[in-house]
Amino acid sequence: MEAVNISSMLGRFSEHWAPKKIAELNEYDVKVVKVQGEFTWHAHADTDELFLVIDGVLTIQMRDGDVVLGPGELFVVPKGAEHCPRADAEAAVMLIEPRGVVNTGDAGGDLTAEVETLA
Amino acid sequence: MEAVNISSMLGRFSEHWAPKKIAELNEYDVKVVKVQGEFTWHAHADTDELFLVIDGVLTIQMRDGDVVLGPGELFVVPKGAEHCPRADAEAAVMLIEPRGVVNTGDAGGDLTAEVETLA
Repeated sequence: MEAVNISSMLGRFSEHWAPKKIAELNEYDVKVVKVQGEFTWHAHADTDELFLVIDGVLTIQMRDGDVVLGPGELFVVPKGAEHCPRADAEAAVMLIEPRGVVNTGDAGGDLTAEVETLA
Repeated sequence: MEAVNISSMLGRFSEHWAPKKIAELNEYDVKVVKVQGEFTWHAHADTDELFLVIDGVLTIQMRDGDVVLGPGELFVVPKGAEHCPRADAEAAVMLIEPRGVVNTGDAGGDLTAEVETLA
């Protein structure tokens, strides 16, 4: 029964686009991910997805415009909305979504990642 | 379709122990709250509750010990676990839990608050 320090968790890995679980909230997972470059356009047909930027700047490209997030800013991508995250420099992000959601959604491909748990 | 800046949201109110909704994630609400002093011992029989400290220090008293959270630290109070938040100085906290959860849980009383939405 301990606090989870988000920065400490981010210090434990370096790869990009590979979310790590840091906590559970009912049937949801709380994850952190480091990102750099452009992800892949995808959607999650069954769920919203929460992004909270911890460090750096994350641009969530949506079909009708970009949402730009700095540290301490959050955005919820609506269920079914196509989006493509992009970060010109490395950024660190906290994600919350239902357990089992695949990072690449309906797109699949090489960026599809298994979620490791940091404990 | 805009980023939600947590600090900006916190700048829009001053009262303590009155959570404000800043976003929705499926059937969950993302809220911010300012706290100072001691809340009330209570439990939520049906749900976990996520606390992420934005500013200050929050102590979540549990029956088997305290969890102390600083900025960038989170803790999920397990479903059914009695807890009593306390902050000796003012602290600002982000909460995530299912929509409709009452802040005082099974305890009720004067600290029970309606959740206003900041939009």
